[in-house]
Amino acid sequence: MVHSVGPRVIEGGIHKVKGFKAQGYPAGIKRMRKDLSVIYSTMPGTTAAGVFTTNKVRAAPVIVSERTLRSGRARAIVCNAGCANAATGEQGMRDALEMAEITARCLNVQPEEVIVASTGVIGRHLPMDIVREGIKNCVGTLDAAEPGNVAAAMMTTDLVPKEVLVEAEINGTVVHVGGVAKGSGMIHPNMATMLSWIVTDAAVEADALQTALREAVNATFNMISVDGDTSTNDMVAVLANGAAGNPVVTRAKGYHQLKEALHLVCETLAKKIARDGEGATTLLEVRVENARSLEDARLAARSVTKSPLVKTAVFGRDPNWGRILAAVGYSGAEFDPAKVDIQVKSAAGAAWVLKAGEPCETLDKDGLRRIVDKDHVVFTVDLHDGEHSATAWGCDFSYDYVKINADYTT
Amino acid sequence: MVHSVGPRVIEGGIHKVKGFKAQGYPAGIKRMRKDLSVIYSTMPGTTAAGVFTTNKVRAAPVIVSERTLRSGRARAIVCNAGCANAATGEQGMRDALEMAEITARCLNVQPEEVIVASTGVIGRHLPMDIVREGIKNCVGTLDAAEPGNVAAAMMTTDLVPKEVLVEAEINGTVVHVGGVAKGSGMIHPNMATMLSWIVTDAAVEADALQTALREAVNATFNMISVDGDTSTNDMVAVLANGAAGNPVVTRAKGYHQLKEALHLVCETLAKKIARDGEGATTLLEVRVENARSLEDARLAARSVTKSPLVKTAVFGRDPNWGRILAAVGYSGAEFDPAKVDIQVKSAAGAAWVLKAGEPCETLDKDGLRRIVDKDHVVFTVDLHDGEHSATAWGCDFSYDYVKINADYTT
Repeated sequence: MVHSVGPRVIEGGIHKVKGFKAQGYPAGIKRMRKDLSVIYSTMPGTTAAGVFTTNKVRAAPVIVSERTLRSGRARAIVCNAGCANAATGEQGMRDALEMAEITARCLNVQPEEVIVASTGVIGRHLPMDIVREGIKNCVGTLDAAEPGNVAAAMMTTDLVPKEVLVEAEINGTVVHVGGVAKGSGMIHPNMATMLSWIVTDAAVEADALQTALREAVNATFNMISVDGDTSTNDMVAVLANGAAGNPVVTRAKGYHQLKEALHLVCETLAKKIARDGEGATTLLEVRVENARSLEDARLAARSVTKSPLVKTAVFGRDPNWGRILAAVGYSGAEFDPAKVDIQVKSAAGAAWVLKAGEPCETLDKDGLRRIVDKDHVVFTVDLHDGEHSATAWGCDFSYDYVKINADYTT
Repeated sequence: MVHSVGPRVIEGGIHKVKGFKAQGYPAGIKRMRKDLSVIYSTMPGTTAAGVFTTNKVRAAPVIVSERTLRSGRARAIVCNAGCANAATGEQGMRDALEMAEITARCLNVQPEEVIVASTGVIGRHLPMDIVREGIKNCVGTLDAAEPGNVAAAMMTTDLVPKEVLVEAEINGTVVHVGGVAKGSGMIHPNMATMLSWIVTDAAVEADALQTALREAVNATFNMISVDGDTSTNDMVAVLANGAAGNPVVTRAKGYHQLKEALHLVCETLAKKIARDGEGATTLLEVRVENARSLEDARLAARSVTKSPLVKTAVFGRDPNWGRILAAVGYSGAEFDPAKVDIQVKSAAGAAWVLKAGEPCETLDKDGLRRIVDKDHVVFTVDLHDGEHSATAWGCDFSYDYVKINADYTT
């Protein structure tokens, strides 16, 4: 029996995953920056899976791509930034379908093999002349692509591109899983204006890929929150092309290893998104431990990362942990307030602020303030009420969040 | 049959309601301002009702007062600002009970007839020496009280006191209903750090009072949102002392008139709270029309008033109505996105921005910006999907919201 090494993050990005080409191009939808991207799998048998926004209002590309991914197969992803193609009616559907068609024609694949995505302002039609030309140019320069172009071309109010590469072993074969993402405003559980593309050279049966992606997304992307809003356009999709030559992963074989690798890719990208939340200065991590159920743990953790009062307190380096307790209290999670412990931790140290529902009398306020004054702060909420745990990620709420969002469309 | 006139707001406040005394006093819990208040009904048969926070974490005074109000009777309310007496364990319960006892002794009523409330920072014990002395001084100066003192003594980060007086006719007798409230941060449906006391000289049977209060609160206080957080301390209570001499209101007699009067008091106070949200520059009113159910209408309306992206857009006078649609989309309400109309309205005019799920092509951006640039903006969302409507109120999200909340405990 081959000893399997757990997945690990290594240097690089999606360009290091065998059998994929990827390019980002400045089409001109947004002035002076890359705004259109294409990812292409050179392998005919590529399987695919996706997870989509739960918002009742779904952008045209979401509707088109969900339909495409029902087949469990896809060869390419085309994505634009600058215009969400949401609330755009029949014309919006035609535009999304045409994006797939043009991409398919350029790549010599079928339109039903192309995943389409858009991100940007809601309620405007795509400038299709620019998009058509952009797709052609993007595909035309695929072979000359530089690493990082796709992640750069997905950005809206993101400050930094987000990309990761993970190496893993599946049943003895080394495989790679790479991912890119965009996030920032409107980020919240259940798919916010967040897009992420994951590519792997592992061979994975389509059903196993879908299940593993869903599980990984629930524990990672769906546990981040920037402002509690969810969007009309979110999507995570994965393409698995088999270029690594591993025996095909199924639910019965290699599934756990695949899932762990996907989880690591998703968690790394999710944390990058939370840290890059609009105006954020601190990555906020909330661990809820010993909850009655996984659902309770997730509800409680997300409620804290979502609370504007907690988020502004973190921005102010204000050790107002009462707001953490209040946010757990209205989360909908079942628990007994008299059992709750809360700890605040960062690279500067750790302190328990609440034990069994009562404040720790020994609190040193200046010490607490020093702990919160770091770029990664962890709140641990121990409910002492069961065996389930969950982690959620968010960021603080700053003046800049308001500034960025007070004037976005104009 | 006597023709009944609907309730109307008139000049004055709770001091104009017969048979009540009310005083606010600077006890010293907060430096240099009124922070302790007592309301007292001089009539022995006073009935009472209350509605409490749904947060799992309940402050000691909430637990005590809910117990008190089970009897349907109360004679007095004692309330302090500056310390929430929440997450304070057994000591907190003893302190809350003692507040009731001291007040009862000073007023010569029973401790079980005194409603207790606190608002302020979570996780600190009440400075009971100051509170004891303050209650005595407050009751001692009841007869010398000036109008407005109670509303002033409830304020935390509120900028203005909130008070209203309503005159109504119940079965031919003129009655008055007065109310005071405090709100500001942490305001959200299901009772946020919001306290409101309502007093009426109408005679009302206790069950009818409780039902009418619950209905009024659900349609008013529970439809406002400042930041989406709910608190550990919220409470609305009403005292009805019968000094007006009307035949006792029951579910069968005079109920509708009482409910309308209570509704008007609650709605007026709720809007004052929303307008005075921390850092707010604009009162945001969201009307959802023609929803499938009342619950759907309320979910959708509250979701829009709660959305940080909508709130920052309003602050920026940015006509980004796509965020309104997205917020309805993730509200949990059932609707068909292809049927939705959205209108933006203010004293500066009105404009439809979305019709049947698609943007109105004739949009004039500068015109829209002028409409949003007012201190009261109304978004109407017509779902064309049923017969139920609801209104929610909120405010914009400004730099000052962040500033106020970044540094509250210290």
